[in-house]
Amino acid sequence: MTLDAKGELVRFNGIVIGTDGKVVKLLKRGDKRPDRPDWKEDLKGRTVIPGMVDAHGHVMSLGFRALALDLSATRSLGEAQDAIRRYAAENSTRRWLTGGGWNQEVWGLGRFPTAAELDAATGDVPTWLVRADGHAGWANSAAMKAAGITATTKSPAGGRIEMVAGKPGGVFVDAAMALIEKALPQPTPRDRNAAFIKAQDILLSMGVTASADMGTTIDDWMTYRRMGDLGILRMRIMSYSDGVDTALQVAGSGPTPWLYGDKLRMGGIKLYTDGALGSRGAWLKAPYADAPGNSGLPFLTDAQLLNSISRGAMDGFQFAIHAIGDRANQQVLDAIDELSDTYKDGQRWRIEHAQIVDPADLPRFGKHGIIASMQPVHQSSDRAMAEARLGAERLAGAYAWKSMLANGARLVFGSDYPVESPNPFEGWATGFTRQDAQGQPFGGWRPEEAVSREQAWRAFTIDAAYAGFGEKKFGHLAPGMRADFIVIDRDPLLASPSDLRSTTVLETWVGGERVFQRAAQRGEGGR
Amino acid sequence: MTLDAKGELVRFNGIVIGTDGKVVKLLKRGDKRPDRPDWKEDLKGRTVIPGMVDAHGHVMSLGFRALALDLSATRSLGEAQDAIRRYAAENSTRRWLTGGGWNQEVWGLGRFPTAAELDAATGDVPTWLVRADGHAGWANSAAMKAAGITATTKSPAGGRIEMVAGKPGGVFVDAAMALIEKALPQPTPRDRNAAFIKAQDILLSMGVTASADMGTTIDDWMTYRRMGDLGILRMRIMSYSDGVDTALQVAGSGPTPWLYGDKLRMGGIKLYTDGALGSRGAWLKAPYADAPGNSGLPFLTDAQLLNSISRGAMDGFQFAIHAIGDRANQQVLDAIDELSDTYKDGQRWRIEHAQIVDPADLPRFGKHGIIASMQPVHQSSDRAMAEARLGAERLAGAYAWKSMLANGARLVFGSDYPVESPNPFEGWATGFTRQDAQGQPFGGWRPEEAVSREQAWRAFTIDAAYAGFGEKKFGHLAPGMRADFIVIDRDPLLASPSDLRSTTVLETWVGGERVFQRAAQRGEGGR
Repeated sequence: MTLDAKGELVRFNGIVIGTDGKVVKLLKRGDKRPDRPDWKEDLKGRTVIPGMVDAHGHVMSLGFRALALDLSATRSLGEAQDAIRRYAAENSTRRWLTGGGWNQEVWGLGRFPTAAELDAATGDVPTWLVRADGHAGWANSAAMKAAGITATTKSPAGGRIEMVAGKPGGVFVDAAMALIEKALPQPTPRDRNAAFIKAQDILLSMGVTASADMGTTIDDWMTYRRMGDLGILRMRIMSYSDGVDTALQVAGSGPTPWLYGDKLRMGGIKLYTDGALGSRGAWLKAPYADAPGNSGLPFLTDAQLLNSISRGAMDGFQFAIHAIGDRANQQVLDAIDELSDTYKDGQRWRIEHAQIVDPADLPRFGKHGIIASMQPVHQSSDRAMAEARLGAERLAGAYAWKSMLANGARLVFGSDYPVESPNPFEGWATGFTRQDAQGQPFGGWRPEEAVSREQAWRAFTIDAAYAGFGEKKFGHLAPGMRADFIVIDRDPLLASPSDLRSTTVLETWVGGERVFQRAAQRGEGGR
Repeated sequence: MTLDAKGELVRFNGIVIGTDGKVVKLLKRGDKRPDRPDWKEDLKGRTVIPGMVDAHGHVMSLGFRALALDLSATRSLGEAQDAIRRYAAENSTRRWLTGGGWNQEVWGLGRFPTAAELDAATGDVPTWLVRADGHAGWANSAAMKAAGITATTKSPAGGRIEMVAGKPGGVFVDAAMALIEKALPQPTPRDRNAAFIKAQDILLSMGVTASADMGTTIDDWMTYRRMGDLGILRMRIMSYSDGVDTALQVAGSGPTPWLYGDKLRMGGIKLYTDGALGSRGAWLKAPYADAPGNSGLPFLTDAQLLNSISRGAMDGFQFAIHAIGDRANQQVLDAIDELSDTYKDGQRWRIEHAQIVDPADLPRFGKHGIIASMQPVHQSSDRAMAEARLGAERLAGAYAWKSMLANGARLVFGSDYPVESPNPFEGWATGFTRQDAQGQPFGGWRPEEAVSREQAWRAFTIDAAYAGFGEKKFGHLAPGMRADFIVIDRDPLLASPSDLRSTTVLETWVGGERVFQRAAQRGEGGR
């Protein structure tokens, strides 16, 4: 089944695919079957739906993070050392070992780990592992040597070198982390290729066939082109460049065409107007409830924002502008108000996250065809923190999905992977429940802002494609559209929210080619 | 007519081209003509030969230079001002006007021109015009203002600000030129697109259908990709990156595939081991005859050269190494000797220019499959200077084309445009005459180093294609090869050398498509 271009449900039980990888016809019960179908399989009660589209992710970061060592599941120093030893053996060609997720409290260690304890697992391969909270790093002796750390190295302002017996002990806190990180080698093109392939594998295995890439750098772009040139690019990437200059350098005087059979296009530019809520970097209209006097900070002056947008919009680039705090959202809305007359033809202004919005500003999202690009799982991850940061009164316009629709904005969903899991079924389920994976809170958090199950599906398919100018190519199945679809083990319109979350993707097809097939057909035979 | 893959002459009088742009068949007298030929024209005695291949050029520089103002033909300040006024009117959207070629001696001015005299032609558009010898530049008032030049600006070491009535007068000599040049804006992507299109137009109009691009930067590469993506890339570019890092960033772990229907490939890396003869930057084994004690300078130590080659060759990149002086050529030959066992499979080592070679080193070019990539017109442009710089004794291995062949090296020809004209017929004629456009010197300069007319043709076609790993795709006409050919107004195997030089290209075809047709069919009706 699929939505059509207008969002109406269409059921089918077969697809005829042309040699160009596009849908020729959706077969319905009673239709004559072609003599030699291009794609045919006994579905045994499985469901075929369009490939999911993530409106906001970070492709290369997902790959790099997935290739790094993950210690978040380790429960003791010994377990961590075993995991490190295994990782070192499996990655023997790496110049440095990197990763993170450790927490000495979880280990019950009562102190930080030491460089010697890391040396025991890594030998002399420089190694740097960041603590679960990102506020400290654990270096081995080789890493400290490479970074030129000696007994006389001083802790910088805002940071601390943990000392053991009068010498740097291996752990570097906050600003001291940079002492090691400056010695980390830049990824090579081979590293980048490997990270891309890993990210693509993850996304396809989760049923994501197309994704916006938010903040494509030159090196990211070069990687996508190498993959495209070599025929390794199998997913679709809607690329938003990391700032204006990158877009101009790559694409010149306007968006690139769709390349590699509609698999890659740089069509827009990502800008940031503020930071995030957790670090109190989001720019608010009034101070943080839990930090009096601090309202966060803007990244750009109004003039800088207008100037950046003008530089790109005059060449036809779309803008996707990060705004988390209510003041940042107001700034972007003001900028769009100011520029929308000049750049009115099909701009599809995007505001990314739009997490905390002053209710007075909510109706402004309905003007100028603004797209609210939001991430359902952020709501369940952040809700406790948001309550602390903002207090109850300022939550009326927070994660306000339904209000966005009610005001006439176009709502599109994504995951913001790798900040959250790229699994779109988690986002889909959160979208109509406002509950987390444990079903908390009961009844949903501010459930009046939940959207319908069908609306959440739209936001992860046809509308996410629209936001990236791809709606005539992918996002739903219909004659002439690219044959991007997934085979899943349950009916997503009937599954309970928790069942929908644990949907298993059995096969993924892009452009009429099977690009993923689950090895052990788990989920077969049903629950 | 064409050479075949082995260099034997093949005559034909028709070409059948497939829908894929490749040659299906060469038709000979008496062959049955197809009922509906793909390409057919009454040639009226014209000649069809394969598109010419330039083994060494600089595509973007050609375009930028062609778009800049050229004052070299002006004979007075007034003529120059008229030319500047015309150029300013035709280029009214440019932020700066740039160009050069002026010479106040030719103008009979008896002094340098002034900023005020330039203002009279340009108004307040910043303008910077370099003197014919490259050793001085002429700025207008707007350019001096943009560069922050005031009455108190000091001349830097090695440079001089020409003063008029106690103020900077507009002319900046040698190191002082940088005071203005630092204010020149970087070309925009639009500027780069325009420069590429101009270069391509020039090359196709001169019958060059494929060219090596020596020293492709990231921005150059992005331009070629934009042109390819938009279907504007019509010539074939064998790209050699500007150093190792650019190749790794662009192509990653090995050469790119041939892209856009065999029109673009980054297959190699350009390195420099010395400068040029004119500025006495070429690295010689013994001091310059006209500058005792000065032997020029190496650009790289032996270790740096070996290290750079290894970094790229281990990933399969080809190397094209600039070496002009005999010491520089020796350094490159030493490096190839050292590395050829490690990187022996199809490396196709290229030495670019190979202008001055110690006769003792000449036989070494026959080893390891080395390609001598030389530019015939450099020989006629440089011969007087080379005699002054080197003295008669050291000319035995200078511009030694025939000796290269005799020693078993592969000889390929190019123009080094825009240093010389990209017209390949000038190079072809020089190749077998060792004479310049005026037929000087009588009998040719060191005529024992001339090659045959057919050999020079090979060097501009099949062998130039071989040097860029394109010999199975272009460089000659045969079934399965890309249909790249030109229609010219005379028979190049029968024309006198001066007639060959003035060959007119009437049409140029690349991949079976006509990409250039001369508007007024000059040359028709014969000379």
